[in-house]
Amino acid sequence: MPELRKDPVTGKHVIIAIERGKRPSDLKETNEEIKPKSYVETCPFCVGNEEKTPPEIDRIENENEWVTRVVPNKFPALSMESECEDSNQRLFWKKNGVGYHEVIIETRDHSKSLFNMEVNDFVNILKTYKKRYNELINKDEIKYVSIFKNYKKKAGASLEHSHSQAIALPLVPNLVKEELEASKKYFEKYKRCIFCDIINEEIKDDKRIVINDDHFVVLAPFASIYNYELMIIPKAHQHSFKDITENELKMLAESMKEVFNRLNKVIGDFPFNMYIHTLPKGMEKYKKSYHWHIEISPRLSNHAGLELGSGIYINTVAPEDAVKNLRNI
Amino acid sequence: MPELRKDPVTGKHVIIAIERGKRPSDLKETNEEIKPKSYVETCPFCVGNEEKTPPEIDRIENENEWVTRVVPNKFPALSMESECEDSNQRLFWKKNGVGYHEVIIETRDHSKSLFNMEVNDFVNILKTYKKRYNELINKDEIKYVSIFKNYKKKAGASLEHSHSQAIALPLVPNLVKEELEASKKYFEKYKRCIFCDIINEEIKDDKRIVINDDHFVVLAPFASIYNYELMIIPKAHQHSFKDITENELKMLAESMKEVFNRLNKVIGDFPFNMYIHTLPKGMEKYKKSYHWHIEISPRLSNHAGLELGSGIYINTVAPEDAVKNLRNI
Repeated sequence: MPELRKDPVTGKHVIIAIERGKRPSDLKETNEEIKPKSYVETCPFCVGNEEKTPPEIDRIENENEWVTRVVPNKFPALSMESECEDSNQRLFWKKNGVGYHEVIIETRDHSKSLFNMEVNDFVNILKTYKKRYNELINKDEIKYVSIFKNYKKKAGASLEHSHSQAIALPLVPNLVKEELEASKKYFEKYKRCIFCDIINEEIKDDKRIVINDDHFVVLAPFASIYNYELMIIPKAHQHSFKDITENELKMLAESMKEVFNRLNKVIGDFPFNMYIHTLPKGMEKYKKSYHWHIEISPRLSNHAGLELGSGIYINTVAPEDAVKNLRNI
Repeated sequence: MPELRKDPVTGKHVIIAIERGKRPSDLKETNEEIKPKSYVETCPFCVGNEEKTPPEIDRIENENEWVTRVVPNKFPALSMESECEDSNQRLFWKKNGVGYHEVIIETRDHSKSLFNMEVNDFVNILKTYKKRYNELINKDEIKYVSIFKNYKKKAGASLEHSHSQAIALPLVPNLVKEELEASKKYFEKYKRCIFCDIINEEIKDDKRIVINDDHFVVLAPFASIYNYELMIIPKAHQHSFKDITENELKMLAESMKEVFNRLNKVIGDFPFNMYIHTLPKGMEKYKKSYHWHIEISPRLSNHAGLELGSGIYINTVAPEDAVKNLRNI
């Protein structure tokens, strides 16, 4: 029976319609091939091909060899060399697209993905995220740093070798602003962080929790938009990813390894996006009400006319069922 | 040079980044096959297979034969038989998913699509849209009727035979509410409809107009999110699709035929969504400030982590370039 739900933070509506998952199709969408060898000659991110990328910005090393590398995006969405004219017309507002766009090469090994990496690989990726975040957020003109990952073509990736991206933006993005405002409103009303309240309520309910350890909770949001959508969130109230400690980082890496492993066992090697939401620069007034987190959005189906035209999403897997499957393995 | 733009109505940000369109890829996404024959035995929407659909709700006829048919969706996103419990908890709001979900079979001919139909086919489709809209909007509990089309798998279609859908909703969708509020705010400030102002400004500029006839304008929005995104909008101030006249409907059909023909010549047989935005029931106070329109969103690339995580979109084709190409054929 279809059920309409509303996200407690963003107010987004989703229709949980399990029956729709069973509809037949005469249209094909072919799967991409299985991951190949550890080294691919034409891959600019493979070991030995370092000269194929623009000059390196940053790296994490182990015994004099890189384990992660950071390079400028060769085809940046934003650039410090941009010099369009700003325009403040009533209808046609535009702004110079200044910013930074970096690629984080997550591993030396072309055959690795978040589905088969070790805890230590996750630690190195997260350390690189933290380094780049802190470096970029302190640049002039930058208000927000978006760290995200696209896995497979359907999720927007253009290269196969496991990588993430950091985009440093000259503005606070709308979705983050919406979360900031909504959680502040809740805080003003109830004197509590809405994310803390969700965590507590979810732990009590125990229907949508995948992992609950000392530092992090992994849960399927009540109004999940995507099949098997998950959120990783620190249990303690923390407004920003930038202050994550070494120990927390290690715990986060363990949760991530565990959760990708479980996802892989249930839905295979699937396309997904992952991104961090954290307090923007200069937004200290939201410190008590905002709570940083990571979202994982599997791209198993395609948004269609209803989603694009109305902002109402259809999800054919109830988050409770997703969690049942992720627990029972 | 990347350029940041903001949509005048919704406030959505888009980065126009032409250079990014040139990036190479080692990931494949296979194209779907070319449209087949006029009749497909297994297709529930083909002539002669009428018993494969649930009982017909509506049709348009010509010489005793149907030209369009309307049937209930076999796998509805919403249903009048739904009977979940409503819940008004502070964090976990949910509502019974009541509503209607219909399929509009647009043609008898399996090989037809909006890319090769005649004006008369468009007239029949639009007449069916209007009939279903007016029937559904008057039902109890219904606040909004979303009429939309998904073409090809990547745009969310599961069946190949050309069809649209109507979903009657028990609430006003967020995206429509946002447009209503934003245009009202503009009206209060400037005493004018923002859409009327955009139309006039665009006609004056003449950089983003594809078609400009007596009744309708087809334009590429200033802050287009999708490559070759288009909007079809009546030139006169009209708040609702439901009152469209026979003559306007004919003119709209001509514009649509023309625009899909041009799109086809420039970008081929591509996946897209199309949907109507119109004034919801009982919202007469927005009559002067809201202006109905149709949006066409080609799905040539995939939204990725930046879009999902921040609500900032990257578009690799400037709307001005799209229009240049659509005009020069």
